[in-house]
Amino acid sequence: MPIAQKSPSRSPIDRYVPADHTRVAFNGGFWKSWTETVRNVTIPTQHMRLDEEGFLEVLDFDKPAGPLARPIQPSGLSMQHFFDSDFGKWIEAASYTLKNNPNADIDAKIDAIVEKLEHGQMADGYLNSWFIRREPEKRWTNLRDLHEMYSMGHLLEGAVAYYEATGKRRFLDVMIRAVDHIIDTFGREPGKLRGYDAHEEIELALVKLYRVTRDPRHLDLATYFVDERGQMPSYYDEEARKRGEDPASYVFQTYAYSQAHMPVREQTQVVGHAVRAMYLFSAMADLAFENDDESLKSACDRLFDNLVGRQLYVTGGLGPSASNEGFTREYDLPNETAYAETCAAVALGFFSHRMAQIELDSKFTDKLETVLYNGALSGISRDGEHYFYENVLESHGQNRRWKWHYCPCCPTNIARFITSLGQYFYSTKADEVAVHLYGENAAELTVGNAFLRLNQKTEYPWNGDVGISLGLEQPKHFTLRLRIPGWCRDAKAFVNGEAIKLDIVKGYAAIEREWKDGDEVRLAFDMPVDRLYAHPAATEDNGRFALRRGPVIFCVEEADLGTEPQRLRLPSQGEIAASFDETLLGGATVLEGDALEADASDWQETLYRTEPPALKPRRFKAIPYHLWANREPGAMAVWLHEK
Amino acid sequence: MPIAQKSPSRSPIDRYVPADHTRVAFNGGFWKSWTETVRNVTIPTQHMRLDEEGFLEVLDFDKPAGPLARPIQPSGLSMQHFFDSDFGKWIEAASYTLKNNPNADIDAKIDAIVEKLEHGQMADGYLNSWFIRREPEKRWTNLRDLHEMYSMGHLLEGAVAYYEATGKRRFLDVMIRAVDHIIDTFGREPGKLRGYDAHEEIELALVKLYRVTRDPRHLDLATYFVDERGQMPSYYDEEARKRGEDPASYVFQTYAYSQAHMPVREQTQVVGHAVRAMYLFSAMADLAFENDDESLKSACDRLFDNLVGRQLYVTGGLGPSASNEGFTREYDLPNETAYAETCAAVALGFFSHRMAQIELDSKFTDKLETVLYNGALSGISRDGEHYFYENVLESHGQNRRWKWHYCPCCPTNIARFITSLGQYFYSTKADEVAVHLYGENAAELTVGNAFLRLNQKTEYPWNGDVGISLGLEQPKHFTLRLRIPGWCRDAKAFVNGEAIKLDIVKGYAAIEREWKDGDEVRLAFDMPVDRLYAHPAATEDNGRFALRRGPVIFCVEEADLGTEPQRLRLPSQGEIAASFDETLLGGATVLEGDALEADASDWQETLYRTEPPALKPRRFKAIPYHLWANREPGAMAVWLHEK
Repeated sequence: MPIAQKSPSRSPIDRYVPADHTRVAFNGGFWKSWTETVRNVTIPTQHMRLDEEGFLEVLDFDKPAGPLARPIQPSGLSMQHFFDSDFGKWIEAASYTLKNNPNADIDAKIDAIVEKLEHGQMADGYLNSWFIRREPEKRWTNLRDLHEMYSMGHLLEGAVAYYEATGKRRFLDVMIRAVDHIIDTFGREPGKLRGYDAHEEIELALVKLYRVTRDPRHLDLATYFVDERGQMPSYYDEEARKRGEDPASYVFQTYAYSQAHMPVREQTQVVGHAVRAMYLFSAMADLAFENDDESLKSACDRLFDNLVGRQLYVTGGLGPSASNEGFTREYDLPNETAYAETCAAVALGFFSHRMAQIELDSKFTDKLETVLYNGALSGISRDGEHYFYENVLESHGQNRRWKWHYCPCCPTNIARFITSLGQYFYSTKADEVAVHLYGENAAELTVGNAFLRLNQKTEYPWNGDVGISLGLEQPKHFTLRLRIPGWCRDAKAFVNGEAIKLDIVKGYAAIEREWKDGDEVRLAFDMPVDRLYAHPAATEDNGRFALRRGPVIFCVEEADLGTEPQRLRLPSQGEIAASFDETLLGGATVLEGDALEADASDWQETLYRTEPPALKPRRFKAIPYHLWANREPGAMAVWLHEK
Repeated sequence: MPIAQKSPSRSPIDRYVPADHTRVAFNGGFWKSWTETVRNVTIPTQHMRLDEEGFLEVLDFDKPAGPLARPIQPSGLSMQHFFDSDFGKWIEAASYTLKNNPNADIDAKIDAIVEKLEHGQMADGYLNSWFIRREPEKRWTNLRDLHEMYSMGHLLEGAVAYYEATGKRRFLDVMIRAVDHIIDTFGREPGKLRGYDAHEEIELALVKLYRVTRDPRHLDLATYFVDERGQMPSYYDEEARKRGEDPASYVFQTYAYSQAHMPVREQTQVVGHAVRAMYLFSAMADLAFENDDESLKSACDRLFDNLVGRQLYVTGGLGPSASNEGFTREYDLPNETAYAETCAAVALGFFSHRMAQIELDSKFTDKLETVLYNGALSGISRDGEHYFYENVLESHGQNRRWKWHYCPCCPTNIARFITSLGQYFYSTKADEVAVHLYGENAAELTVGNAFLRLNQKTEYPWNGDVGISLGLEQPKHFTLRLRIPGWCRDAKAFVNGEAIKLDIVKGYAAIEREWKDGDEVRLAFDMPVDRLYAHPAATEDNGRFALRRGPVIFCVEEADLGTEPQRLRLPSQGEIAASFDETLLGGATVLEGDALEADASDWQETLYRTEPPALKPRRFKAIPYHLWANREPGAMAVWLHEK
């Protein structure tokens, strides 16, 4: 399949295009060390884990299959069914670094995987290391449980990323053949299976492919999968019966688990497995964009609002329950048992970002910022080699990041998020530049036919002063749209030193003018320490508040307090001071203030008594939530008791 | 084995003997309807469940084994492995009712089970419906996981109860043969297996048998099991290797799960599965009593203190975690996820009661009272046909009692506790009568060679006035020891109308005199509404208090409040009024007072904001915790936010 030059999107409307992440350099400030760490430490060590944990062995297609690296669970699924997805995501994350930082060793490791995949691929294009080696006759017989298109989708994303980074087509061609096979196998035409994978992923991957090939069949397949999803009677009922199973014996009991309980345009509440939901909504947003589909956009809006209004942790984490790795009911936001899978927060970033390309509204990019500085970033340790799967908001110290995960979907997800970070900061149109996120970087953007160098100089998120300097070969008339963060109640802007009145449209301040080389915009976002309260229906947060400063949510750790943070009582008024601590994990803003501590010294072996504990005054310190659990183990709390 | 007349215990010291429960009649007051309900509704319906749920079928020893009624879990154990224990406990619970309330139908149902057990019993005495029918060659090969002696122990308790109720020996003889077989199989002698069942139960059952037979071998076997437990190297390691397994693959990872990680006398912290722990400690107390064993008594004291001082819910529930149905670490007392198995609270009642027979100290019987009026009683619905397995202290309304349980150990446990309730109220010695618990009843006690009729007239636990009248054929000099409940800060006593000064020894007021027929003692226990605070290390209870009045712990239910109780803020001072509500589930004291409620009416779709919720004044009502979840589903909380 020849790859056309990028032709305009099907939609006639001029839409936002995200920045090319390879042209956004995090040369200073907050993201410099994170991006360097992920590139230099995370990417190589993740390959080591794939190797030493036995993942790569599944690609030895010529050898007998061998014992399982992961057991089969009651659902019939083993993590090993979808090891291919881990290869795809690692390749994707690694590929994002290769254009600006070529690395022969990483390149060779990718090639080695691609070569094996190509070798193992069936003649008709089917590609899946589990089924090809173990039970090829069973391929495509269980879309409900066994992750075949999920795996192929991640391989596809990896192939696209690798092609875009290196120009090499081998992996992309392998995956195009796999997609051709899927096109031949699934659809509404007679002779095809009218199904769709229960774990959403292929849909958004096909859009990425479409954006490279401009082959309408690639977009049509994604559209088919999203439109077919949830149609009744359910494909999964029929598929189960064909396997000789009773559909009612489904271990997760409801297709809501996979957002397949009703057509997607009819869904109004976010339900089921959180990552699946976010991948689906990301694909729906992509298709709303590519197909100019208002009904999909409306559904996305409803679902986004439901998530943000009733089901999102203050850290941007989502999906409270381990039982389905997802949602239970509205306002269910327990802190100690929060599942809040890293993958889900990252995928909320994907979804939010996509929505903003369709409709520039800070309500979307505010959440992108939230996950980026909080509930996604908490998924990786400061040293870049350890990962949280669950991101709790309260702990007794038993939560520690892992070198690898039993199901290692999260490490590669946070890695690919960070190695392609620049794409989330800016979007452009012919005559617009939207700045979604703040953080020091040097970006090269295309605005219509002009080439714009946009540099941000800032210590954001540690303070709210942002200096933006523009470099242009010649003056250009365009609108600079600057997101005014939702947390900010007092924002000022200056153009070339002169204060301007903010003209805010859906949370973005629009500055339309003829911009010249050397123009400077300064933003001053007032960044006080805020106490945040939760809706009373979020029962666990009653009587407590969380500390926020700018985009950063804070927490208190036993490592600083010397005791469990739950013993603190913080005053509802009064100053909490922010200062920069260079010595804390590479440097971070910390908060300090007065509090009371419930004193147990006169309790001895008494567990309950009528006399309340004495409250003794003390100081407390809070650190950014994303930095927790990087020091010695101990208790932690985001939501602190109010006195 | 002939059954001797009850000879004195091996110990020369005159110890307390619990009352004969068949001679304590709950003819009025709080326990009248509960004991009637359990006898008339619970006992028959539990047999119906055994029948309709397929339990009784496992006793058809002549038929082929058939499909499993319960699947085999990762540990290799199925609930079906120990269905015999459910028969034993049901027979025990039912038997306790038969002496005073003969019931030919229940008797016939018991006989039917016994006949099948006798028929299926192996020639050498081995008795277990799973192994005999399915894999007799595997008997005794896995004491760590498969519950063989646990089941036999409960059958034995049932057999003893049935014998004592009816004089019929058939079941008892079956079990004596089974015990003979255990004696032949286990022990330190050459040729025997030097093991012990990981699920404690046989030990305390053997003591019950010993108390009927006075055969020293029965007591010696129990003593051996308790002494051998936890000796290193562990029997379970060797046993696993004999099965070709790696001991390290044990699904629960530590023998602490079964309190077998070190010899019992060396244990200082309560760990592992909660019911196992309480059954072990009950047996240890029994053996401390029967063998006059100070070292066991000391161990029991340490473990009791550790439980009560650091690991007990305010309701008397214990064992916070579902993962091991037991303990995690000290002060881990989460409310919503509290496992607090009904069986464990009942078994704490057993343990506490046994300790008081050795050493009369209200610290023990206070906890007996706590479970009786709170965390054990919550295990059964007011209608007597539904049961909680877990007894949470906070709920969103998703916790409802069940008609039966997947593992139905709890229903029969709470049933046998209540049908033999009278034994817990009183203990006697030659010249002492100890009153442990208060509640209306008419008791016939033996004090030395005298026959004492002791009637309690009281509305306890709804108020603290207790009238005790004594009936004697002739005057008798003895000490009446009356427990002064630990919650009571102001107790008065009157003998024949005259106030007396309380002479309190270890929480029991001693009144020594020559008692005459018609003597009356009146106790007045001041019963204010108390706010209880938890040790700050019980992190979830920080900033909250629980309401207690007398022995009863209260909770707030959405059924009364109209919203989630977590939204309430209660003042730390101020009156909370108690009144009796005849209409509430048969009549109960309720508490009412002023509070504030976090108002969400101006939040709309906002989940987090800097403005705290408005607090609006309102009234609240609290009901006894043991009565929760008997009305329409809704949220509940024991620990209420303090303002």
